[in-house]
Formats: sequence, structure tokens, C-alpha cells
Amino acid sequence: MIANTPATPYYAVIFSNMRTEIEEGYAETSIEMVSLAEAQEGYLGQESVRDGLGITISYWANLDAIRKWKQQTDHLLAQRMGREKWYSAYKTRICLVERDYGFPF
Amino acid sequence: MIANTPATPYYAVIFSNMRTEIEEGYAETSIEMVSLAEAQEGYLGQESVRDGLGITISYWANLDAIRKWKQQTDHLLAQRMGREKWYSAYKTRICLVERDYGFPF
Repeated sequence: MIANTPATPYYAVIFSNMRTEIEEGYAETSIEMVSLAEAQEGYLGQESVRDGLGITISYWANLDAIRKWKQQTDHLLAQRMGREKWYSAYKTRICLVERDYGFPF
Repeated sequence: MIANTPATPYYAVIFSNMRTEIEEGYAETSIEMVSLAEAQEGYLGQESVRDGLGITISYWANLDAIRKWKQQTDHLLAQRMGREKWYSAYKTRICLVERDYGFPF
């Protein structure tokens, strides 16, 4: 469940969000977007939790990989649906992971 | 619930974790650590969610603020209890937030 990312430096995209009550298309699109992200070059992993507030963090090798993922056609459509229907608020943060540590890995 | 952080750049500390079944002292210490963090110089906000996987992200003005928070006496004790009792796994990632965007803020 905790993403097994490589040695730093790498990038993290933190997507913090609050949902509307609209369920239509949300679950299917979420699953689809995870599969699509996994297939992108430079994708390193993902962590996702929701309990009221939702936080999804995807990890990437570099900024170019993030840029390409943001512009991926189906993802662009999902982002638009997100703004129009599924999210009442969100914040996306593009982060350079400078250092990490933990256990057992 | 989504932290209202200032203009970039600033720092994020992503703490991804899995809990053991030991509850003793955990809830009280969590509440205490949030209050303590809020009182630290350079603290900018926090987002926290758990649903199996736990993700807590704290935001900071600079690396020096993060260093001081990591070394704060009560926080050092909480970190030790965390490793020994409360967490079966965790990863801490120190991140420079280079860019952010969202709505409504």
C-alpha cells in the first residue's frame, strides 16, 4: 500500500480533494485513470486514501513524465469531468522529493 | 480540510503509514502532535486521512522548520513510540512543492 519508490530525487503529485455527491462515472473513471497512469513512462507508484478528504499521491521519475500524464487525452477528459461534476474542491501540488526514509523499506 | 497553503515554493512532509493493532496512547498522542506542530515556527498546515493506509501531509515554510520539528523533544518521543508500537510500516518523504493549483482556492 505504501509505494515502493526508488532512491531520491523523484517527483510526487499530491492531489487533495473533496467530492461532490455525484457518483455517476466516478468509480469507473478512477480505476481507469490508475491503470492509465501505471502505463505511462516514468510512473513510479501511487498511494490513495479517502475518508471525507481524499488524498491521492502519484510518484514520477521527472517533470516531463508529469507533463505528459497531465496532457494524456483520456486523462484530460477525466480532469474536466472532475472539475465539472465530481470534486467540490481540490488542490494539486507538484513536488520534488528531496529525501525519504522509513521502515521496513 | 484541504490546507490553505501560501504561494509556492514551500515544503511538504508526506508521512505514509500502516498501523499495528496497538491503540494504547495513539489517539491522544496524534492530537497532541497536531497541536505541537501548529505551534512550530514555519508551520503552514496539514492534511490527514486514514482508511487502512494512513497519509498525513504537513506543510512547512522551509527545511529549517522541518528540521526543528523533527528534533522537538515530545515529537522525538512520539516518533520512537511510533516505530516501537503504533506503525507496522511507514515512509516519510521531504518534498519541495514547486507548483500548485486548484479550485476554489
